[in-house]
Amino acid sequence: MKNNIFFDEVIESKNNPKIKFYKKLMNSKKVRYGYQLFVLEGSRLIFDALKSKAPITQLYFTQTAFEKYSIDIENLIDDSIKINVISDEIGRHISSTENTQGVFAQCGFSDNSQIAGKLKTNGKYAVLHKLQDPGNAGVIIRTADALGLDGVIFCESCDVYNPKVVRATMGSMFRIPIFRDVDAEELFIALSDIGLKTFAAVVNPDSCDVKKADFSHGGAVFIGNEGNGLDSEITAMCSQNITIKMNGNTESINAAMAAGIIMWELMRSG
Amino acid sequence: MKNNIFFDEVIESKNNPKIKFYKKLMNSKKVRYGYQLFVLEGSRLIFDALKSKAPITQLYFTQTAFEKYSIDIENLIDDSIKINVISDEIGRHISSTENTQGVFAQCGFSDNSQIAGKLKTNGKYAVLHKLQDPGNAGVIIRTADALGLDGVIFCESCDVYNPKVVRATMGSMFRIPIFRDVDAEELFIALSDIGLKTFAAVVNPDSCDVKKADFSHGGAVFIGNEGNGLDSEITAMCSQNITIKMNGNTESINAAMAAGIIMWELMRSG
Repeated sequence: MKNNIFFDEVIESKNNPKIKFYKKLMNSKKVRYGYQLFVLEGSRLIFDALKSKAPITQLYFTQTAFEKYSIDIENLIDDSIKINVISDEIGRHISSTENTQGVFAQCGFSDNSQIAGKLKTNGKYAVLHKLQDPGNAGVIIRTADALGLDGVIFCESCDVYNPKVVRATMGSMFRIPIFRDVDAEELFIALSDIGLKTFAAVVNPDSCDVKKADFSHGGAVFIGNEGNGLDSEITAMCSQNITIKMNGNTESINAAMAAGIIMWELMRSG
Repeated sequence: MKNNIFFDEVIESKNNPKIKFYKKLMNSKKVRYGYQLFVLEGSRLIFDALKSKAPITQLYFTQTAFEKYSIDIENLIDDSIKINVISDEIGRHISSTENTQGVFAQCGFSDNSQIAGKLKTNGKYAVLHKLQDPGNAGVIIRTADALGLDGVIFCESCDVYNPKVVRATMGSMFRIPIFRDVDAEELFIALSDIGLKTFAAVVNPDSCDVKKADFSHGGAVFIGNEGNGLDSEITAMCSQNITIKMNGNTESINAAMAAGIIMWELMRSG
């Protein structure tokens, strides 16, 4: 009966070691990677993670949140997860939103940094190469999940465990395979091993219109950096360049939107 | 010769009436609508606006920016536009970014609030109904412009002249017709007058797959509120409901992304 935790100690000090560690995981990629742990905030996200059997190790609830979610807590949480009750002030201290729900978690990394042998024949993947904005990365993961891609591959991009990425995925990161910190050379070898076509998304009106690309045997679409697009070495290694044909004098579409449209086309034929 | 402005008065006081008025336009929809004026920030956006002959009435440059952009200023600005030089401190005071370029403008509204008689036969439009997030609205305008829609129609949505919308459009708001504050009843009459089909974007797996919708004679696609979707009265008034088929247990796609994919399909057949 987990509810009796409620009557245990309430963490009220910012100097509590667990709280200090949570803040370090929030703010430092180095600490995240050292401990292979990251943090989550928000009831929907965390209960989604629990349903998806994400390796959550610690949970933090404000007293109000603990009472509000007591049924979910009883249903979803087993004894391997430590539950901590924190004061409202500590809730605000560790929150990255203005109006926190008071629900926080610490979760282990998935072990998807090795890609060899893990890709599906005729699979459909988005590869993010040097994509920097956490919001864009999160929206791309969420869209990839909604559209039913087989995975999203992070290659020299922002940290998938950055709290801003985690939040923007709205729980999708626990539903779709994410490969992180994948080496580009290793990735091209893995893709070639299973004969998967590679498509470079570029802003070039002379490239193949994405509507005309042949995705019938799946493929990996490479999305590049927000400001600079895809590296020319990556473009050169891909089987084909594809582009979204744009109206006259327009700046390119935002990176997440371009990725969304290209993933839509990748999935469009079914 | 505009350059001699450089040697004129430099605005250094936050209490300068022009600066106080600029801040009011930034922060208050009521003031914007009272004076039919809004504000712009950033060199790219403002020079795009000037190229598009937007009705800019005042320009503000920090001294550094004034020197940097002196050639563009000479080429693009005629005597109807007042140029003001401001101190760096005032630049930071009126900026809505962390690292301002020091280029600001005050611009008149376009007069697109009356829609009757202004829509194209077989035209392709996005209608935003009760869409609230300025970032989403801006990205939708930018994408609509890139894909070549005939216009974006704001219906009980956020203010198109909110500085966050303006910034997120990246200049697209000066290239694509935007209709603002359009009354829903009036809009349906205007659409019916030219026989344009209306499509309600909904999250409902039983609705018509957007891939199968017939956009061959154009149409207006209605996008609803981020949290609540489209109002049922609007949905009921539309010719057809359309949906993006989604993968199993996924939360719906973000509103801007959904709008982007639907606009892509609207334009896809050419």
